[in-house]
Amino acid sequence: MAGSTYGNIFRITTFGESHGTGIGGIIDGIPAGLEIDIARIQDDLNKRKPGQSEFTTARKEDDKLEILSGIFEGKTLGTPIGFFIVNKDSRSQDYENISSAFRPSHADFTYTKKYGIRDPRGGGRSSARETACRVVAGSIAKQILSTLGIRFSTYICKIGSIELDDTSFFNQELIESSPIRCPEPQVSKKMEELILAVKKEGDTIGGIVQTIIEGVPAGLGEPVFDKLHAELGKAMLSINATKGFEIGSGFRSAEKKGSEMNDEFTSLSTTKTNNSGGIQGGISNGMPIHFKVAFKPVSTLLQPQETINENGEKVVIQPEGRHDPCVVPRAVPIVEAMAAIVILDFYLRNKSVTL
Amino acid sequence: MAGSTYGNIFRITTFGESHGTGIGGIIDGIPAGLEIDIARIQDDLNKRKPGQSEFTTARKEDDKLEILSGIFEGKTLGTPIGFFIVNKDSRSQDYENISSAFRPSHADFTYTKKYGIRDPRGGGRSSARETACRVVAGSIAKQILSTLGIRFSTYICKIGSIELDDTSFFNQELIESSPIRCPEPQVSKKMEELILAVKKEGDTIGGIVQTIIEGVPAGLGEPVFDKLHAELGKAMLSINATKGFEIGSGFRSAEKKGSEMNDEFTSLSTTKTNNSGGIQGGISNGMPIHFKVAFKPVSTLLQPQETINENGEKVVIQPEGRHDPCVVPRAVPIVEAMAAIVILDFYLRNKSVTL
Amino acid sequence: MAGSTYGNIFRITTFGESHGTGIGGIIDGIPAGLEIDIARIQDDLNKRKPGQSEFTTARKEDDKLEILSGIFEGKTLGTPIGFFIVNKDSRSQDYENISSAFRPSHADFTYTKKYGIRDPRGGGRSSARETACRVVAGSIAKQILSTLGIRFSTYICKIGSIELDDTSFFNQELIESSPIRCPEPQVSKKMEELILAVKKEGDTIGGIVQTIIEGVPAGLGEPVFDKLHAELGKAMLSINATKGFEIGSGFRSAEKKGSEMNDEFTSLSTTKTNNSGGIQGGISNGMPIHFKVAFKPVSTLLQPQETINENGEKVVIQPEGRHDPCVVPRAVPIVEAMAAIVILDFYLRNKSVTL
Amino acid sequence: MAGSTYGNIFRITTFGESHGTGIGGIIDGIPAGLEIDIARIQDDLNKRKPGQSEFTTARKEDDKLEILSGIFEGKTLGTPIGFFIVNKDSRSQDYENISSAFRPSHADFTYTKKYGIRDPRGGGRSSARETACRVVAGSIAKQILSTLGIRFSTYICKIGSIELDDTSFFNQELIESSPIRCPEPQVSKKMEELILAVKKEGDTIGGIVQTIIEGVPAGLGEPVFDKLHAELGKAMLSINATKGFEIGSGFRSAEKKGSEMNDEFTSLSTTKTNNSGGIQGGISNGMPIHFKVAFKPVSTLLQPQETINENGEKVVIQPEGRHDPCVVPRAVPIVEAMAAIVILDFYLRNKSVTL
Repeated sequence: MAGSTYGNIFRITTFGESHGTGIGGIIDGIPAGLEIDIARIQDDLNKRKPGQSEFTTARKEDDKLEILSGIFEGKTLGTPIGFFIVNKDSRSQDYENISSAFRPSHADFTYTKKYGIRDPRGGGRSSARETACRVVAGSIAKQILSTLGIRFSTYICKIGSIELDDTSFFNQELIESSPIRCPEPQVSKKMEELILAVKKEGDTIGGIVQTIIEGVPAGLGEPVFDKLHAELGKAMLSINATKGFEIGSGFRSAEKKGSEMNDEFTSLSTTKTNNSGGIQGGISNGMPIHFKVAFKPVSTLLQPQETINENGEKVVIQPEGRHDPCVVPRAVPIVEAMAAIVILDFYLRNKSVTL
Repeated sequence: MAGSTYGNIFRITTFGESHGTGIGGIIDGIPAGLEIDIARIQDDLNKRKPGQSEFTTARKEDDKLEILSGIFEGKTLGTPIGFFIVNKDSRSQDYENISSAFRPSHADFTYTKKYGIRDPRGGGRSSARETACRVVAGSIAKQILSTLGIRFSTYICKIGSIELDDTSFFNQELIESSPIRCPEPQVSKKMEELILAVKKEGDTIGGIVQTIIEGVPAGLGEPVFDKLHAELGKAMLSINATKGFEIGSGFRSAEKKGSEMNDEFTSLSTTKTNNSGGIQGGISNGMPIHFKVAFKPVSTLLQPQETINENGEKVVIQPEGRHDPCVVPRAVPIVEAMAAIVILDFYLRNKSVTL
Repeated sequence: MAGSTYGNIFRITTFGESHGTGIGGIIDGIPAGLEIDIARIQDDLNKRKPGQSEFTTARKEDDKLEILSGIFEGKTLGTPIGFFIVNKDSRSQDYENISSAFRPSHADFTYTKKYGIRDPRGGGRSSARETACRVVAGSIAKQILSTLGIRFSTYICKIGSIELDDTSFFNQELIESSPIRCPEPQVSKKMEELILAVKKEGDTIGGIVQTIIEGVPAGLGEPVFDKLHAELGKAMLSINATKGFEIGSGFRSAEKKGSEMNDEFTSLSTTKTNNSGGIQGGISNGMPIHFKVAFKPVSTLLQPQETINENGEKVVIQPEGRHDPCVVPRAVPIVEAMAAIVILDFYLRNKSVTL
Repeated sequence: MAGSTYGNIFRITTFGESHGTGIGGIIDGIPAGLEIDIARIQDDLNKRKPGQSEFTTARKEDDKLEILSGIFEGKTLGTPIGFFIVNKDSRSQDYENISSAFRPSHADFTYTKKYGIRDPRGGGRSSARETACRVVAGSIAKQILSTLGIRFSTYICKIGSIELDDTSFFNQELIESSPIRCPEPQVSKKMEELILAVKKEGDTIGGIVQTIIEGVPAGLGEPVFDKLHAELGKAMLSINATKGFEIGSGFRSAEKKGSEMNDEFTSLSTTKTNNSGGIQGGISNGMPIHFKVAFKPVSTLLQPQETINENGEKVVIQPEGRHDPCVVPRAVPIVEAMAAIVILDFYLRNKSVTL
């Protein structure tokens, strides 16, 4: 039973390999009669696409979105939205010299074990190229949610050991004014320097993305298995290169006492603190939702690495392709997209909680 | 759209409130002809039940399992297993004096907001009592997986700031020799002292549970949304009081370079390190799977706390019920159960990856 | 991937074998705050239960419903409703003499082939006893739908070649005034005589059940795969002993011209004729929905029949158990229950068609 | 909750409106490493496409299939297959003069009621053009099933009152030798004459399609809700213009006695008769599966018809577009496609019935 579909009512299904014709998807369950601005979807895609700056891979993709159905004269019909993004710059020759080796911490080995067949053109379905489709669906979800007063702020809060310790809702302008999407200029500067230093070594570095969601009404989340933070966790951990997820005070909660962590109610819509991260008992309480997602450093290094090939023989690989020294800046729009998909899905699910 | 069902092929659906008649569930999708030892399920339930020791609540529940269908003469029929656990010691009067107040960091407020109705008997469906049903399903899953050579080691690795920094596969005897399920006696001792000190203050403390799974074959996990660690993450974060999940090197990955984190292949089934935690590209690679789950301190304190009631008026509550100073020891069998459910479900899902 | 769950938002999952402890289920997705009269559910169960009259099996079951969760002080909590019905009169000895033979047109053979194991106690999961759980869920659905003005009329329209050619909405009193649930007394009389004649021969007879649903608002049904009549068809054909389903003019449509079958609109809520059976393009149009379900004669005969046993040897069986000469009167509440489940599920699904 | 997805393990999701850019879909859950002949898919599409003969609409569509992913060098990768079919000849002007009227027995009215918005370009999502996507998925399913020895025979068995009373497995050559896909030449001739006569009147006529499936192993079908014939029923009734479904002896069973209808076992894989249609207790028994699907006459007549417009005013419409006098010949490949999707899905579902 395959896993190319996400969501229950607002639901996206995707297809496509990184070195094939293109990628695309179908979004089903979009309410009818809503205005969708396709230019804004393309803007979000542009934030994710490669080749944006010296902090990302030099691989060039236009990521030009084609909407094939479901929207007529700028409005949703209630029918599924089909969309396609052509693969322009696949250059599979970059991968040729490593095609029989299993790259360390990549998905080459596990895909081959699972399917018994290996796509020699490269990452194929395991490539993060697939996440462009998530950005399309998430961008549409954000446009719909914005009409309900729900808004998102997503940014980098850690690269290596450089950290922005803040859960503020920074606006888009501030975030986008940083080439790596860290809204505090001083901290951003240090992060940028670290990424470039690592890049010079042919190495890569990990980081953490944080999302703040304001305006989520109380009541979203479904007991007992589909708790809101459980589904946010799954959504985030389904993004390539993720290693951890935490909601509110997260792992820090494990070190604390109840008297330190409890969020006292101060009104019927507010709490004094927000260690809960806006979710209690798996259901939103109306306070801002905030969570963090940990990304490992990119596995492809421009350094020699030992590994084995398909025959179990030791080999040394040194990729010469174009790769990201740090994937976290490009992960920002993907994290935000998945968050928007989850929130809209739960918003629609909650419509049947009463008759 | 409610969320009382978990899993795709091996699937559990649960019902029941903490102060009603009882709780129970239906497990569908169990392969036919498998031997199930019901006494071992009861053993797992006993590890979760309240009243085990001074480290857990004094609330008494037998948690006596009744299997109602699906097993005949010790073997699965392939039909769904229905089961029931009666609620014996509900004592809803303990909750009466707080029934109109919203307890801080509890689910009272969010359930009332969501459903527009409040069960005055107490936690109801939001109570962790529900997790007993997960232990039943997980225990059955573990018995099935053990015939495939897949085995679990789950234990406490952190309480407050006391940590066991180890990802070894400790055996059940060692784990159960600690009253709080920390397999390293020295560390366990310190944790026990901390819990008792916190208990004396009427306070509570958080912690971290770690699971190691050995024997998982390479190939489990479904691209792209149902990555194995994404689904493990959801499963864990659906447990009451969880705040974070990490796979392999987890949040630590964010601070590291690719050259430090990459797991070099040393054979067609092993890697030199295991920062991946046994999962690459969302698919198991045959190495041990290891992950951590962060639990916040229990929200119910035996101390006075300010809050508001249903009319928005400030009130002070001081529960006199019987509650856990630290829920983490009792969370161990729940975490292990959910892990087993996920692994078995993906094992069965993987059966259709080839014809 | 097993199939013990039905519905998307209003969802029932069932368990239980005919000769085990009992049967039961979980209904998830019930909107919160609705009044449910449990006595009315029991009334519907009584219409289905065996031993009602000379037209049904003499097997005795009280079919006493126990509600285990989800309803508090007569109102739904929004949490799942668990329920149980004990098996009282299993008398598995009736089945003993045929336990190694495969009964013609029964499910003995196919279950054994599928699961590789045979429950020697009798029909087990394949028994129509399971449908009692559907009646529970359907009865709750009907109570909810009645608050929306949606009402059901279900009755026998054919037994053997005796037919009631009418699609009127007959009321419950009229239907229940017939011991076999045919609301036209003259026709009912003839059908009763036929059933008794067949019974005397130790034989059985088939028939057709018809349902009329009034008050369904326009707009229910989901393009393209989940058309309303497609899902009604699946729901009906999932009932034991069904062989056919037709909506509106059904098979008769195949013989007609478009000019004869088209339903001209006479207003924005009515059509001159109703050959569509209240559904156009898979979506309800506001006119009464009407459909028919064909039931084959019961397979268990009180006559000798040739068959083979598990070793492939020819044997003659002659059951002496207590069986229905005609299952159709008892199928009436089951058909109505499944129809109500489908309509409520689609009503709730339709809530997210707009924001 | 929308309904553009069909199947559980082998799963198709579709998009596209009849007068938009094109239509397409994603097939997920295809086992890896299987050879797929794309030319054979195109052949099946050609059987469905308009403009084949004087018996079908003159609308011209090439229905040229583009495979976008999931197949590499003729073999499935295990990843989803995305595909697209461009809309070439949309000519929406044909529909302009009726755009504000609700066409009798069409989906204009119900779609407008459901979505609150009307696509003025014509049938849009309700058009049977969508079924081309089903043919793609079904054709792939048939290729996979043929490697398992499972084969299909689908043909017309009734047009108006002209009937072919036979459940033989006719081969493809015989079926395709008839321009309307009735494999008995004498009967075909009469049906052709009837269709042409009806066409001359600007009228349309209904009919019945029959499918025979040989080689299905015993054991497919899932108790209790997902009985094999229930899912076949849903699949067929989800096709445009269907009004009824029957399995085996179908509605005729209702008129018969058990002694007439029971299928006596003659060996561990055969029965003397096959009134069950190859399915007992919802599970295949190894005998040929046979079922019938009733299609109503096409609703669009080239005759004047009374109806109302969106303001509720009476209007007379007389379409001048290009439409089918009888849709049943083109329905043959669609019925077969849906049957293949169902059988493959259940084949894959059955893989987890044992460990």
